[in-house]
Amino acid sequence: MGQVIGAKEKETSTYLKAYPMKSIGDVEKVKEDLKHNSIVIVRITPLAQKSLEELKKAVEELYEYAEGMGGDIARLGEERIVITPPNVKIWRALTQ
Amino acid sequence: MGQVIGAKEKETSTYLKAYPMKSIGDVEKVKEDLKHNSIVIVRITPLAQKSLEELKKAVEELYEYAEGMGGDIARLGEERIVITPPNVKIWRALTQ
Repeated sequence: MGQVIGAKEKETSTYLKAYPMKSIGDVEKVKEDLKHNSIVIVRITPLAQKSLEELKKAVEELYEYAEGMGGDIARLGEERIVITPPNVKIWRALTQ
Repeated sequence: MGQVIGAKEKETSTYLKAYPMKSIGDVEKVKEDLKHNSIVIVRITPLAQKSLEELKKAVEELYEYAEGMGGDIARLGEERIVITPPNVKIWRALTQ
């Protein structure tokens, strides 16, 4: 079985998905993608323009979820957030 | 040996690095990171403000390099480019 798993891991590559977050309901979509080992870059501006309260809630939920699953999360500029599954770490430079 | 490789793959996780591209010389840094299996998100605005010709050259070089190594490359908004090593595919949605 060990070798089979190894072969499978090579076949199924990780996906990087980028999409906008339009409502708090999109949090479930992000969680689903993370569960399937995808890296997600969400553009938060559509939700920010709609409701800052919903945005805050969505971001908090994503932080908790990423931490809970052993993944990682970080801001990417003003408009985006990157969330990674456990096998991908976000590298934090000393100087940006 | 098969099992040992499997174990190693689990240990060495992929890194996602985000940094600005300030000169065409930074292309080498990106290539080096890709070679080490990192995902790179470069902010191209600093180079765009310096020289559009250098930017064009840098982006062309990155496209060629990504394609040559079996990786992937895509724009991320107006300011950034994502480049991935062969094990990470960029998912392109039908609707953005």
